[in-house]
Amino acid sequence: MTTSFDGALCDGGHRMQVRVFYEDTDFSSAVYHASYLRFMERGRTNFLRLLGTDQRGLFEDVKGEETGFAFVVRSMQIDFYKPAFMDDVLDIITNPKDVRGASITLLQQCKRGDVLLVEARVRVAFVAGGKPQRLPRFLRTAMQGGSDHH
Amino acid sequence: MTTSFDGALCDGGHRMQVRVFYEDTDFSSAVYHASYLRFMERGRTNFLRLLGTDQRGLFEDVKGEETGFAFVVRSMQIDFYKPAFMDDVLDIITNPKDVRGASITLLQQCKRGDVLLVEARVRVAFVAGGKPQRLPRFLRTAMQGGSDHH
Amino acid sequence: MTTSFDGALCDGGHRMQVRVFYEDTDFSSAVYHASYLRFMERGRTNFLRLLGTDQRGLFEDVKGEETGFAFVVRSMQIDFYKPAFMDDVLDIITNPKDVRGASITLLQQCKRGDVLLVEARVRVAFVAGGKPQRLPRFLRTAMQGGSDHH
Amino acid sequence: MTTSFDGALCDGGHRMQVRVFYEDTDFSSAVYHASYLRFMERGRTNFLRLLGTDQRGLFEDVKGEETGFAFVVRSMQIDFYKPAFMDDVLDIITNPKDVRGASITLLQQCKRGDVLLVEARVRVAFVAGGKPQRLPRFLRTAMQGGSDHH
Repeated sequence: MTTSFDGALCDGGHRMQVRVFYEDTDFSSAVYHASYLRFMERGRTNFLRLLGTDQRGLFEDVKGEETGFAFVVRSMQIDFYKPAFMDDVLDIITNPKDVRGASITLLQQCKRGDVLLVEARVRVAFVAGGKPQRLPRFLRTAMQGGSDHH
Repeated sequence: MTTSFDGALCDGGHRMQVRVFYEDTDFSSAVYHASYLRFMERGRTNFLRLLGTDQRGLFEDVKGEETGFAFVVRSMQIDFYKPAFMDDVLDIITNPKDVRGASITLLQQCKRGDVLLVEARVRVAFVAGGKPQRLPRFLRTAMQGGSDHH
Repeated sequence: MTTSFDGALCDGGHRMQVRVFYEDTDFSSAVYHASYLRFMERGRTNFLRLLGTDQRGLFEDVKGEETGFAFVVRSMQIDFYKPAFMDDVLDIITNPKDVRGASITLLQQCKRGDVLLVEARVRVAFVAGGKPQRLPRFLRTAMQGGSDHH
Repeated sequence: MTTSFDGALCDGGHRMQVRVFYEDTDFSSAVYHASYLRFMERGRTNFLRLLGTDQRGLFEDVKGEETGFAFVVRSMQIDFYKPAFMDDVLDIITNPKDVRGASITLLQQCKRGDVLLVEARVRVAFVAGGKPQRLPRFLRTAMQGGSDHH
């Protein structure tokens, strides 16, 4: 199988694949529940990367000038429907649902083929110096194109 | 500081302390968001342990006789209010909120002193062979004593 | 960038790329030292996968019939030369060095471009029911082709 | 069981207990090999803490004044003798073995009761701005008291 390393933008959102390794499982033989949050964070980071946002660069600005920016997760609503297992290849699908001035709500899904395993609504805020900031216009525009709310 | 290794039962719920180590943080300098799920799972596991439930034993029964039991997280609603940092000592507080036949909803809080950092409602189901099962009576009784719903 | 999802066999060994995400870093701003072990395990698992070995299948045989097999790490000698950082793309390179009847020693490297960051010698044994077993001939032959020892 | 939260100094070294939780295991049913590195890092951090060293404070100095200090792992030699399992209580024992000007070699053991599961020699360096630095005298003196090399 060949796939784009960082996934791909599609339908206003992002789609990537992850492989389940030993590190993601627990002794129940299925994937550990918090591992899905790691998979979904990879999806969000790659989505932002493909939209032109460099999180490490944003953060280094924060440290250097005290005026830089970072994304933080404010809340998540997660449903765990079915388990994933070692060696599975999962699709991590990320779509903007509600784009506001200082936060974005993303709908994220983990699927194995057509089967929905885990679904989450994730509200991400954009902060500097611990305070909420307006999202950069280019990001808001890019995400609003894919959201229900524009 | 001396503390009980597995935390303690109190007010119908459970309370334990965790220390934040390198492994729990990320390059933002704060605790990685999925690490709180690991802390809360430790709280749930120790709560069940102090109520007399041995999860490894339950699970081994499952594998051996196909009639054993396991707990699985069905859904979580998490709010991340404030960050924790390296070396912090956090209180992980777990209280049953809604005890039903085959699932329990727990309210879990991560606090640093009096400051609430993270709060989650976690619905845990009791399954065998992938199917929901009634909770053992002794657990339901123990947890109903501490819940709002009895 | 496009790359093969599971990496590729090359020069008798295996090569794959991993992206550094939040989950891999710690508050020092670099990659957490144990994260390199996760990267190297992904390399070993994909190497075995491309050689035709299905670790989940092997393990399920173990549970079912008590005659199946699993790979376990017996020892590692690791040098951490330079740090990796958020967003880095690393090459994980795995080469068999010493293929014996019941164990394999692999040389694994994590590089960023031409820069060697971490290097490990990893001895992996092949066990069933907790006891060392002879490696399947097809694996031994495949790995001896790439090792110094044939 | 009651135990000191950060473990205790003893015989020139440090000893603490850790509980094995879901997060530490993998689908093989045993503890994931890289989890032992997390346990051993907790031991090192608590050892330094009880000797009076505040790693977060050291690191914040680094960021603020470019003259602060941090500890980094340079190399590890690890033997994995026997597996640990869910719910196990492990002793993590840390002893200085070789204390030099700019680095310390620690012998770390993970035991379950009298049974040695994992043993590692870990060389830790003391750096500032990426360059090796002499260890603070108070630490060198404290650790030499417990090492073979004084």
